[in-house]
Amino acid sequence: MQLAILVFDGLTVLDAVGPYEVLSRVPDLEVVFVGTDAGPKRSDNGMLALIADRSIAEVPTPELVLIPGGHGELRMRDDDRVLEWLRHAHETTRFTTSVCTGSLVLAAAGLLDGVPATTHWTGMDELARLGAVPVHERVVRAGKIITAAGVSSGIDMALTLAAALTDEETAQAIQLSIEYDPQPPFAAGSTTTAPAHLVEHQRATSRFAP
Amino acid sequence: MQLAILVFDGLTVLDAVGPYEVLSRVPDLEVVFVGTDAGPKRSDNGMLALIADRSIAEVPTPELVLIPGGHGELRMRDDDRVLEWLRHAHETTRFTTSVCTGSLVLAAAGLLDGVPATTHWTGMDELARLGAVPVHERVVRAGKIITAAGVSSGIDMALTLAAALTDEETAQAIQLSIEYDPQPPFAAGSTTTAPAHLVEHQRATSRFAP
Repeated sequence: MQLAILVFDGLTVLDAVGPYEVLSRVPDLEVVFVGTDAGPKRSDNGMLALIADRSIAEVPTPELVLIPGGHGELRMRDDDRVLEWLRHAHETTRFTTSVCTGSLVLAAAGLLDGVPATTHWTGMDELARLGAVPVHERVVRAGKIITAAGVSSGIDMALTLAAALTDEETAQAIQLSIEYDPQPPFAAGSTTTAPAHLVEHQRATSRFAP
Repeated sequence: MQLAILVFDGLTVLDAVGPYEVLSRVPDLEVVFVGTDAGPKRSDNGMLALIADRSIAEVPTPELVLIPGGHGELRMRDDDRVLEWLRHAHETTRFTTSVCTGSLVLAAAGLLDGVPATTHWTGMDELARLGAVPVHERVVRAGKIITAAGVSSGIDMALTLAAALTDEETAQAIQLSIEYDPQPPFAAGSTTTAPAHLVEHQRATSRFAP
């Protein structure tokens, strides 16, 4: 089974690497990092480059697709090569997935029209504008489309997907192998738990702010 | 402030990318990925390459050092260039840190002699053999050395470190921005919560098994 993870300049790396770390441990699953062209792709902050080993044209029918987010997703939304590839691949995928603002690319390709989905919490209005039905949950499954909320949520999504592809015990074995027993030192990871002034500041300064 | 993250062939990518995603958001902090030589470094499973933008020789005195794990750490333990770089950098770091089996490299450099530390749960005996005092906690701080347990624990470690470098509110803002409100679908992320037969199997098949 093949999982294609799209990478691009301006991606948020953990969006891609969280699910990669989980799903690469599913038996008989090969993860391939793809770009519009093969080659290095640099992160949203410029501090890290990952390599796309293949172009999307070389990986036309993966069983699984994952689109990460980051401000570079805007160019992906405007790139017909990406949108055509997504539409075509989605016809035969087992699951088509996204993390963070990657769901905006799925929406731009027309895959989320009227479909319940999620994204980074600052992007929910944009997701609705693009035709999806925003759901404030960490992982949203609608048929074979699974979208995850911001950045770190891809790990939870991937464990859910691993169980769907195999069984709960296999997913639990993966969780043990990556010692995913989260103990955040603070309770500030969502808009309902973070101090309200931090939420307001980030909402007001987000790239989706009105 | 500069954080050098060592990357090498055979690394476990989430060990490096979890902390990178958190710490790159600390104001005025630059993350630089370093290798024994600059260039692409491929993951433990071969499926993903990250680029080391600089050689360790080019980054001799970072304020922060992070060593990830993965089976490639074994070669790092045997590489005098790495051990010398670590010992020299550690003299002036604010914090010297590791995730997963990266702590075995710190130990090989002599930085953990008699020091409380942790690693991936399968590597605790090896950590003791190398002179450290193994502690079964997710994040262990001993002076300016902070070690984290397996793979995903680097996110928790990095939030703790972010707060130590700045303040709690800054760390909470980072947590909110990466929406780190973990909701694992299973409770199997530690040896005390996972089904016992999974723990036994992974212990018996680990590269540290007797």
